[in-house]
Amino acid sequence: LSMVRILIKGGKVVNDDCTQEADVYIENGIIQQVGKELMIPGGAKVIDASGKLVLPGGIDTSVHLEESFMNATTADDFYSGTKAALAGGTTMVIGHVLPEKNDSLLEAYESCRGSADSKACCDYALHVGVTWWGPKVRAEMEKLVREKGVSSFQMFMAYKDMFMLRDGELFQALQHCKDIGAIARVHAENGELVVEGAKEALDLGISGPEGIEISRPEELEAEATHRAITIANRAHCPIYLVNVSSMSAGDEVATAKMQGKVVHGETTTAYAVLNGMQYYHQDWAYAAAHVTVPPLRLDPSTPNYLMSLLGNDTLNVVASDHRPFTIKQRAMGKDDFTKIPHGLPGIQDRMSVIWEKGVIGGKMDENRFVAVTSSNAAKIYNLYPRKGRIIPGADADVVVWDPEGSKTISVDNQVQGGDVNLYEGLRCHGVPLVTISRGRLVYENGIFTCAEGSGKFCPLRTFPDYLYKKMVQREKVPDRCINVGMCQLHKSETNLTGCVFFSCGRLFSLS
Amino acid sequence: LSMVRILIKGGKVVNDDCTQEADVYIENGIIQQVGKELMIPGGAKVIDASGKLVLPGGIDTSVHLEESFMNATTADDFYSGTKAALAGGTTMVIGHVLPEKNDSLLEAYESCRGSADSKACCDYALHVGVTWWGPKVRAEMEKLVREKGVSSFQMFMAYKDMFMLRDGELFQALQHCKDIGAIARVHAENGELVVEGAKEALDLGISGPEGIEISRPEELEAEATHRAITIANRAHCPIYLVNVSSMSAGDEVATAKMQGKVVHGETTTAYAVLNGMQYYHQDWAYAAAHVTVPPLRLDPSTPNYLMSLLGNDTLNVVASDHRPFTIKQRAMGKDDFTKIPHGLPGIQDRMSVIWEKGVIGGKMDENRFVAVTSSNAAKIYNLYPRKGRIIPGADADVVVWDPEGSKTISVDNQVQGGDVNLYEGLRCHGVPLVTISRGRLVYENGIFTCAEGSGKFCPLRTFPDYLYKKMVQREKVPDRCINVGMCQLHKSETNLTGCVFFSCGRLFSLS
Amino acid sequence: LSMVRILIKGGKVVNDDCTQEADVYIENGIIQQVGKELMIPGGAKVIDASGKLVLPGGIDTSVHLEESFMNATTADDFYSGTKAALAGGTTMVIGHVLPEKNDSLLEAYESCRGSADSKACCDYALHVGVTWWGPKVRAEMEKLVREKGVSSFQMFMAYKDMFMLRDGELFQALQHCKDIGAIARVHAENGELVVEGAKEALDLGISGPEGIEISRPEELEAEATHRAITIANRAHCPIYLVNVSSMSAGDEVATAKMQGKVVHGETTTAYAVLNGMQYYHQDWAYAAAHVTVPPLRLDPSTPNYLMSLLGNDTLNVVASDHRPFTIKQRAMGKDDFTKIPHGLPGIQDRMSVIWEKGVIGGKMDENRFVAVTSSNAAKIYNLYPRKGRIIPGADADVVVWDPEGSKTISVDNQVQGGDVNLYEGLRCHGVPLVTISRGRLVYENGIFTCAEGSGKFCPLRTFPDYLYKKMVQREKVPDRCINVGMCQLHKSETNLTGCVFFSCGRLFSLS
Amino acid sequence: LSMVRILIKGGKVVNDDCTQEADVYIENGIIQQVGKELMIPGGAKVIDASGKLVLPGGIDTSVHLEESFMNATTADDFYSGTKAALAGGTTMVIGHVLPEKNDSLLEAYESCRGSADSKACCDYALHVGVTWWGPKVRAEMEKLVREKGVSSFQMFMAYKDMFMLRDGELFQALQHCKDIGAIARVHAENGELVVEGAKEALDLGISGPEGIEISRPEELEAEATHRAITIANRAHCPIYLVNVSSMSAGDEVATAKMQGKVVHGETTTAYAVLNGMQYYHQDWAYAAAHVTVPPLRLDPSTPNYLMSLLGNDTLNVVASDHRPFTIKQRAMGKDDFTKIPHGLPGIQDRMSVIWEKGVIGGKMDENRFVAVTSSNAAKIYNLYPRKGRIIPGADADVVVWDPEGSKTISVDNQVQGGDVNLYEGLRCHGVPLVTISRGRLVYENGIFTCAEGSGKFCPLRTFPDYLYKKMVQREKVPDRCINVGMCQLHKSETNLTGCVFFSCGRLFSLS
Repeated sequence: LSMVRILIKGGKVVNDDCTQEADVYIENGIIQQVGKELMIPGGAKVIDASGKLVLPGGIDTSVHLEESFMNATTADDFYSGTKAALAGGTTMVIGHVLPEKNDSLLEAYESCRGSADSKACCDYALHVGVTWWGPKVRAEMEKLVREKGVSSFQMFMAYKDMFMLRDGELFQALQHCKDIGAIARVHAENGELVVEGAKEALDLGISGPEGIEISRPEELEAEATHRAITIANRAHCPIYLVNVSSMSAGDEVATAKMQGKVVHGETTTAYAVLNGMQYYHQDWAYAAAHVTVPPLRLDPSTPNYLMSLLGNDTLNVVASDHRPFTIKQRAMGKDDFTKIPHGLPGIQDRMSVIWEKGVIGGKMDENRFVAVTSSNAAKIYNLYPRKGRIIPGADADVVVWDPEGSKTISVDNQVQGGDVNLYEGLRCHGVPLVTISRGRLVYENGIFTCAEGSGKFCPLRTFPDYLYKKMVQREKVPDRCINVGMCQLHKSETNLTGCVFFSCGRLFSLS
Repeated sequence: LSMVRILIKGGKVVNDDCTQEADVYIENGIIQQVGKELMIPGGAKVIDASGKLVLPGGIDTSVHLEESFMNATTADDFYSGTKAALAGGTTMVIGHVLPEKNDSLLEAYESCRGSADSKACCDYALHVGVTWWGPKVRAEMEKLVREKGVSSFQMFMAYKDMFMLRDGELFQALQHCKDIGAIARVHAENGELVVEGAKEALDLGISGPEGIEISRPEELEAEATHRAITIANRAHCPIYLVNVSSMSAGDEVATAKMQGKVVHGETTTAYAVLNGMQYYHQDWAYAAAHVTVPPLRLDPSTPNYLMSLLGNDTLNVVASDHRPFTIKQRAMGKDDFTKIPHGLPGIQDRMSVIWEKGVIGGKMDENRFVAVTSSNAAKIYNLYPRKGRIIPGADADVVVWDPEGSKTISVDNQVQGGDVNLYEGLRCHGVPLVTISRGRLVYENGIFTCAEGSGKFCPLRTFPDYLYKKMVQREKVPDRCINVGMCQLHKSETNLTGCVFFSCGRLFSLS
Repeated sequence: LSMVRILIKGGKVVNDDCTQEADVYIENGIIQQVGKELMIPGGAKVIDASGKLVLPGGIDTSVHLEESFMNATTADDFYSGTKAALAGGTTMVIGHVLPEKNDSLLEAYESCRGSADSKACCDYALHVGVTWWGPKVRAEMEKLVREKGVSSFQMFMAYKDMFMLRDGELFQALQHCKDIGAIARVHAENGELVVEGAKEALDLGISGPEGIEISRPEELEAEATHRAITIANRAHCPIYLVNVSSMSAGDEVATAKMQGKVVHGETTTAYAVLNGMQYYHQDWAYAAAHVTVPPLRLDPSTPNYLMSLLGNDTLNVVASDHRPFTIKQRAMGKDDFTKIPHGLPGIQDRMSVIWEKGVIGGKMDENRFVAVTSSNAAKIYNLYPRKGRIIPGADADVVVWDPEGSKTISVDNQVQGGDVNLYEGLRCHGVPLVTISRGRLVYENGIFTCAEGSGKFCPLRTFPDYLYKKMVQREKVPDRCINVGMCQLHKSETNLTGCVFFSCGRLFSLS
Repeated sequence: LSMVRILIKGGKVVNDDCTQEADVYIENGIIQQVGKELMIPGGAKVIDASGKLVLPGGIDTSVHLEESFMNATTADDFYSGTKAALAGGTTMVIGHVLPEKNDSLLEAYESCRGSADSKACCDYALHVGVTWWGPKVRAEMEKLVREKGVSSFQMFMAYKDMFMLRDGELFQALQHCKDIGAIARVHAENGELVVEGAKEALDLGISGPEGIEISRPEELEAEATHRAITIANRAHCPIYLVNVSSMSAGDEVATAKMQGKVVHGETTTAYAVLNGMQYYHQDWAYAAAHVTVPPLRLDPSTPNYLMSLLGNDTLNVVASDHRPFTIKQRAMGKDDFTKIPHGLPGIQDRMSVIWEKGVIGGKMDENRFVAVTSSNAAKIYNLYPRKGRIIPGADADVVVWDPEGSKTISVDNQVQGGDVNLYEGLRCHGVPLVTISRGRLVYENGIFTCAEGSGKFCPLRTFPDYLYKKMVQREKVPDRCINVGMCQLHKSETNLTGCVFFSCGRLFSLS
């Protein structure tokens, strides 16, 4: 079906650190050589990439496929969803397992695997939601990490009475993540105020889609982001904020980084491109099609600002957070915006849209584009440089990208499910021509050559260096005093009781 | 006993806006005249104030007298406490009524009044704690405001399972405060993380007084301060943060003020002067004597920083938060710092200590000193200019202050209760010589001439202009668009559904 | 002509700290009594102020009358200008004396006095420009301060080769201001970059009024503001920034205040209300009518932001910076925006426009309005409480203000000179009904009863407490160590050479 | 002399993005292979790197060798200096050419080349100082860039009357840098205030080394940093700040990055490790040995803060700024600190000291260490990935690093010149074992095998992608409107004159 030997010739290889003219030779699913005037065996399919860029395949770190949520099921399963991903230049996705409250995390995971393994067309991995808290959850997290290839957990500060953890629970969950070397993904909105805001809006007679924006303004996200970072700092756990949607939340992330905290941020295509004026559109279906949480933000400077934060490494990753629902499904909330299922489509167009608004828009160069769409994800999820980089020995997840081509986005010709495309009519000046997944040519000029189920589950390893190396080192410094201010505490005062050392805030009691 | 006609002659009258040489004539408890060459009736007692300052009596906005708390009763009741206040130049105090969970606010209030009325030696008022939440509390708040002269309520974000309100409850309490025009005092620390921190410290074997600092570091206060301000903004309620004890919490207050939010802050003498190194003293009793919450902060720059914030109007008020416990009482926590009753003495020395560190230290001038020790409190609690200012018509609460005098603070000669003084040995270059309360000379050169119970309960009126005038105006602007950005929303777009106006964040739906 | 005895009855007296119902009795140019049920002699003119507010007359701290500048002479002299001021509720103005480079400051001052004394209809004072630097300037500054009633000097960081001082000169000028207790007003724009920007714009063919905005964007102001504050801090001189016109410059002021620096800021009505889109208007005359420096800012959030800074005491004063030129005069710059004389009219409408946008707009309450239009100016220029406050003994500069009245601003009925009004068509809901200057009723319901030259030059005293008291105290603390961090320097290290103490940054060498 | 074929076996290769176990095979000066189980020709020298790290050789971006400055000549020439570099793990240095005022840049360059080429033991390049301004300088810059392999120029905001450019000159120099694609290095201190500060200190009798710190406090650096960034932004030129020495200057860099500006920062080992208390040491020679500009900072938190900024990518590069002078040379300033030649030694110990304080200290991991000591420099100076990365095809500049080894720094066994070592006695837990330069083994366990003059001048190419790609793209967006706020300018208003578009601040006029 797909080629086992491929030579990509004449292109410019773009990694996150530099761009170089080089050919790429692929065999057995692996990139074998990168360079000029390669010596390669005969019989390889040659792809002419003159004038084109050769990028590491995109990694979409947040997709919801075949998921039931708020009384609706997403319009894509792992088959259609991953096909759409490939068409857009994404060669790996990370899906979500969100157990109901009190349900087993393990069973939810197994159930998802059961379905996904036979459908996925590209590599995939899974996040598991820590949607409630207790000894059983704690134990299952450990088992998932040790035996099941799960290394990331998602915690919610919103969705009160559904997924929400209280601060004490979140602290314990983060402590546990840290102990087992997992990646702690946190959705930050003040869940209690969301409920109060929704009540207030409905009481005022605001029942339309604009209610989502009115009831959960960005200050609720900034507040929870600040809180989440504080809790993570207390737990000495690296934190990864998801769905960063507002300028003020982005500022919280930036401040934490300046303070030396290990904090990473993920935004989505929609937040980096669209604003909340959509909710005030007079066409209910149009407005409702933009309902997600956190909502798109009313301040029209927001998208540009978030794109800049992707450009300057305050935000690290842009995902699609693909969760497509149909207009009909959304219509459940016709009279009450709180009943519109949350979620936006976007798995297919993420790369092209970010290219258009980010690279063409002057917010980032092509290398930074690779970083935020692929390499950083690989680093964070401990896949790097097997994924996220074009070098010999890496998985052959490769995209040939045409920086001179263009296409206009439309629901009419989309691969992904659902009956709306948020970027309808947007002309993108940067398009994927060929997609190669694990060495198989799976998509070329609109034609798919991938088989259902040919994607593989990709187990993730814990304690990624990118998050943990510095963190671990800091704990190794008990007998040194990093902070001079603290150091003076016991050195310059003679009447202190039992010395207490602080390295990076961590406390140690010494005899 | 005390004089009914008093002429203070030759001094400089210091109000919060300027200083002027003027005599002050007092009769019938009221300041009758302020100026030079006054025409006054004969027979007045003349106080020579040459070379002295004449200040509005101090208002101590947070004192705990005759309070049972954490299995201990404060070492001062309303008699000894208010005497100590007068000796230090404070002529009005505001005490706390803190009902147990599920107890009636009204009953707790009445019980406190019962005792205080017969003991207080100076004017006093009462805050009532909203220590739990429910329809009964809501109703009693209204009754306290309408019938009982209470206008301020204190809410706690710490003291989990004891006083702590959850975010939704706090939101509702603040909404209610706003509706009834009350002053919302909020103690901001993350109560859930405090519990986790205490557990962790005890598990590590840290049981001494330093545990209070280790288990509730300033990031917990900054977090909760940010959250409280967010919740208040959503509730459109002015907020008054109490016990601001750290640089980062102070910064949160400053940021909110820059954003135009109606936020006020109260710190205490101890926070503005002492730091947390005390907790590491090898003498357990010495260390334990400093236990309060939030704890004193380890960063030695903290006191100077907070004093500067008082100087630049980021913080508005400095109280004593007087809550004296004896060493013996504190010894309940000998083996577990969480059992040491929280609270520090300070009702007597507040004015002199702030003068020494603030005025002599160059952080504020004498006018700003009057502002933070008296006038601002009067403005916030709706007593101004009857109190907090020396003008004709005002209550004759007056202090003659000697800016050239000095005294050394010591527990050995203190009026206030308890067996420790945190400022032991501090030489203060600014001392009260004469204190006049409601026109009665009650303290002069170390001699008291006040009668037990001669102080009056001073009912407070709601909707103080200082907090509410701007807030109320903002709600009157529905048909104007304050924020141009928002305005463009409906002006420049024609396909918007049912207009929604925002003035200062408040939402209105229009037909 | 005007009344010598006036009773203002039934109004609410608004000072900067509170509002009270009170009658005001005026005699001999002085406010004699403020209160209810006053005992007054017969024969007084009674002004019914029921439902009205009684405000301290406005103080306009920056006006240019009878000034030649950029080859044009302002359209108002001291007669027409001060009449317009009175019509708007302003009872004192401070004009500018701007000597040419190398000219005598004294002579320029005398020349201005010569003309102004015979024309002014209200009290006035004068700033003198330190438009060049040298020993003669230094000496004349001292003489102006000692003998001529001048206490404020204006320095320019822009106007290269005209008024601009280099950093070293500015430092010396500020040091000198500090030594003689003067108020250092600084116009902050990077004069060198202004020149480069103008060249660049003209080279690009941009010659219209928009060039003013393009060639001196707000970053040039923020930069110079930062620099000015740094220089003042090094010189230990209080600094007063004039014409604060942008959000980023405002932020610099706020940051400095947070750091405890003695910094004050003055903005103008135009900056607090208008934005720079005006420069892009297709009508050249309309666009050119808005040319001033710094220019109005393009970011449409600017005016609201500046008004908020007036509301939260980051900015202290709002002046008109009245400098009216006619369309014909501006036409000198028809082909080159750098030749359009800089300056905007506004002396008449300042109070009403700030009331409309500030008070009605919910940015400040009526007390804060009095502060920024009058009291703060009086405090800074050492006139308080003789001016800027309604109390017995103060100058009877009083305005009866109708908060329910309204009027529409138009050039057609303005008193001030010039042929354009920037607020044309603005409906103001707050208007002055009666203006009283030094006890004389000078304006009532559109009728003037003031005589040319009846205004008095008002000499200003140096070392205003409001700026200098804290500053002076800081220098008195050489043998104390305010900054603990510094203190540890010599305490904890034994091998230090000759101790150097820092108090507030100032250095002292000790034996 | 040195080996032409080298196999480094069993180590972990550390690049700036990840660490991997791999052997490295070197031949003909080039890294030929990186991986496991390599197929290599016989006869290679095998270096056992088990348990060791294999790092890209360090690049020291600022060294002063054989330089005459302030009446003294550095204690190292290109021979001894580069030997010391190699001993410390640095395989490339960039020296400075600093022409006297009015001297030819070209001649100064040629003169330096003449001497360096015959002495250098490792690759080197040269910065040229733009120490004055005029058409000749402009022309010579272009020639240096086109014909001489120079791509970086250093401008000074300090050194008044010596090297200092005024703002207008700096603006023009930066514009020119941008036009020719050069790297603009800027030393940011307010030169005018430095002069005033020195005068003031000397007048106060402060003549010792502490005068350097007292006369040029960090606010002078923060101010100039802010100004430099503003000027660069106006000139649309990427800016590279050198000698970032203070927390406040670091904050200015961070703020600029958050605003999307293209700003990079270089600090030095000394700033990241030492503080200004050294200047108060009673041993004059000891204190004087620390004199450099900007001076080391008094705030003891500074070094940790700067190290954190290196860790979080606010600062990009750490150089030695090696400029060794002897005690005798420094003694010229025995009675006047302004005459002590500025400069500190450090070329040899940079890598070990940063490892000790940065990596062992928990501020950065080993990959970030490679970034700040080597890779970032390679990227900025357009050498990447030929230098700064261990990959096939790269220059064989390689260091074998022992993370378990340790050594104690001492002047007694140093290779670099001078009679003092600032890190005397510091025990470093991370040491270079073997240094390979361009494939030659030049240093192993204390033994040098490099020949004088064997190093090569390494011409630098202009327009490095790392600085310019985003900048150039931004200028390509004239017909798009990046900033929506601006866009509304001409879209929503119909009466605008000739459209003016802003993309990234740049202005374009359209018909």
